[in-house]
Amino acid sequence: MAHERLVDEMERLVGGLQEEISAALERADGAARFGSDSWERPGGGGGLTRVLADGALLEKAGVNVSRVHGALSPEMARKLPGDGPTFAAVGLSIVLHPRSPMVPTAHANVRLLVRGEKAWFGGGADLTPCYLFDEDAAHFHRTLRQACDRHDPAWYPRFKRACDAYFHVRHRGECRGVGGIFFEDLGGDPWRELELAGDVGRAFLPAWLPVAERRRGLPWGERERTWQEIRRGRYVEFNLVYDRGTTFGLETGGRTESILMSLPPRVRWVYDHRPEPGSEEARLLEVLRRPRDWA
Amino acid sequence: MAHERLVDEMERLVGGLQEEISAALERADGAARFGSDSWERPGGGGGLTRVLADGALLEKAGVNVSRVHGALSPEMARKLPGDGPTFAAVGLSIVLHPRSPMVPTAHANVRLLVRGEKAWFGGGADLTPCYLFDEDAAHFHRTLRQACDRHDPAWYPRFKRACDAYFHVRHRGECRGVGGIFFEDLGGDPWRELELAGDVGRAFLPAWLPVAERRRGLPWGERERTWQEIRRGRYVEFNLVYDRGTTFGLETGGRTESILMSLPPRVRWVYDHRPEPGSEEARLLEVLRRPRDWA
Repeated sequence: MAHERLVDEMERLVGGLQEEISAALERADGAARFGSDSWERPGGGGGLTRVLADGALLEKAGVNVSRVHGALSPEMARKLPGDGPTFAAVGLSIVLHPRSPMVPTAHANVRLLVRGEKAWFGGGADLTPCYLFDEDAAHFHRTLRQACDRHDPAWYPRFKRACDAYFHVRHRGECRGVGGIFFEDLGGDPWRELELAGDVGRAFLPAWLPVAERRRGLPWGERERTWQEIRRGRYVEFNLVYDRGTTFGLETGGRTESILMSLPPRVRWVYDHRPEPGSEEARLLEVLRRPRDWA
Repeated sequence: MAHERLVDEMERLVGGLQEEISAALERADGAARFGSDSWERPGGGGGLTRVLADGALLEKAGVNVSRVHGALSPEMARKLPGDGPTFAAVGLSIVLHPRSPMVPTAHANVRLLVRGEKAWFGGGADLTPCYLFDEDAAHFHRTLRQACDRHDPAWYPRFKRACDAYFHVRHRGECRGVGGIFFEDLGGDPWRELELAGDVGRAFLPAWLPVAERRRGLPWGERERTWQEIRRGRYVEFNLVYDRGTTFGLETGGRTESILMSLPPRVRWVYDHRPEPGSEEARLLEVLRRPRDWA
C-alpha cells in the first residue's frame, strides 16, 4: 500500500483530536459523558464511535474516528478518483446538537482517502444556527479563516464558497446553515494537506465553544424549541438526501449507527410551516437563501 | 397527447377517491379537518394537497392528488420508460401518521404515467405498525388481496413480494413495515389497470380503518411514544434515502411541501437503540427482518 506513513500520521492526528475534543466537550457540558463503541469493518479496519446524549449543553453529540481499508466495490470504484482495486480511508467526524435553540448546531470533518498512488484530503466545518447572531457567524468564520490563512490566503475564500455550494438543500432553496469551509482533493502535496486537516480540526472548538458559552444561558421556550425541531428536520433532509458522506457510507455498508449519529435527537415536520414576516425566524431564512460573507 | 381519455379518467378517479377518503378520515378523527392547498406546476399541471394535523386519531395525515405534464428533463428522460420528450402523470398519495403508537401508520398510492405511446400504472398500499398485532396485519393484507383477486389471482402474491422488496431499509436490514402490495408497469391493458388502481384506492380505508378503530382506545405512555418516534425515524430514512417517488419528486422540482407531507410530525433518533430481548418492540424487529405471509 502506497502512502502508508501518511495514513499512519493521519490516524495519529484524528485519534488525538478525538480525545482532546471529546474531553473538552465533556468539561463544557458538565453533566453527561461520552460513551465509546469500537467497531470492526468486516472488509478491513474499524473505528471508535463516541456519543454523548442528554447533556446540559449538548442534547446529542458524536465525535467519531474510523480507519478502514479493503477492496473497492464496483460502485465505489466508479465514484472514487485514482486507480486500483483497493482503498484506505481515515477520518474524524464531529456533530454537535445543542439542547438550547439559541446555541448553534455545528459539524466538522477531516478525512484522507488513498487509492493506488493517489492520496487526497477533504474536510471542513460548518455552523447551523436556529437563531442567528451575526457576531457568532463572524467569529466562527474568522476562526476557520485563520486556520486556512496559515497555509494559503486564497484558500478560505475558495473553501467558504465551496461550503455554501455543498451544504445546499436544493429542494428548499436554502443552505443548511451559515456555512464555514469545505475542501476536497486540493491536488497538492498531501503532507501539506495533512497540516491543513490538523489545523482545521484544532480550530473547530475555538470556533464553536465561545459561541456556545455566550448563548447557553439565554432564555427560550416552546416557540424556540418548535423552531429548532423544524430546522433540525431540514438538517435531516440534507444529510439523508444530499450528504455524500452519509449516502456513500450507507450504500457501501458502513456502520449505520456511526453514520447516522449525525441525525438530531428530536425532530419535527410541520406541513408548510412559514415563520411570521419580520420575525427572527424569518430573518434566518433570508440569510440561508442568500449566503453572506462573514469574515 | 396519446391516452388523453385514460388520463382524464384517472384524474376523475383520484379526485373522487381524495374526496371520499378525506371525508371518511375526518369522520373517523372527529376533531380535526383537512386543509386544502391547490398548487400549479410551473412546467404544466398542478395538484390539490390536503393535510390534516393534530387530530384525535391522526397526528398528521395527507391525501394528495396531482396531474402534471410537460417536457422531460434529461434526468427524467433517462429514467422513465417510453419514448418522446413529454410526459403526463396523475396520482393519488395517502399517508396516515396516527397519534397513538398502537395504531399503525399507513400509506397508499396509485399513479398513471404516460410517455409517448406508453401508458403505465403503479401503486400499492402498506402498513407500518410500531406494535404488531398479527390479526391487524392479516386483515390489511386480506383486504388488499381481495381487491387484487378480482382481477388476477396471481397478482396479490406477486405484488406482496414486490412490496417487501421495495419497502426495504437496506442499511437497517429491515422492512419499513409489514408490507402490503406494490405494483408497477404491469405491461397489460391500461384500461384494466385503471380498474385495478380504482380497486386498490377503494380498498385502502376498509383495510386500515377497522384496525385503527380496534386499537385507538388502547392505553399507551412514554415508553410506547418513544418507540413510535424512533420507528418514525426509520420511516424518514426510507422515504428520504430510498423512496423513488420522493427522491424523483425532489430531483425534478416537484412541490416540496406536497412531497414531504409524508414525513411524520414528531421523530427521534437515539444512538444505537436496541429493544429489550423478548419485548414486544423486539418481536416487531424480528418480523421486519423476515417478512411473513399474512393472507
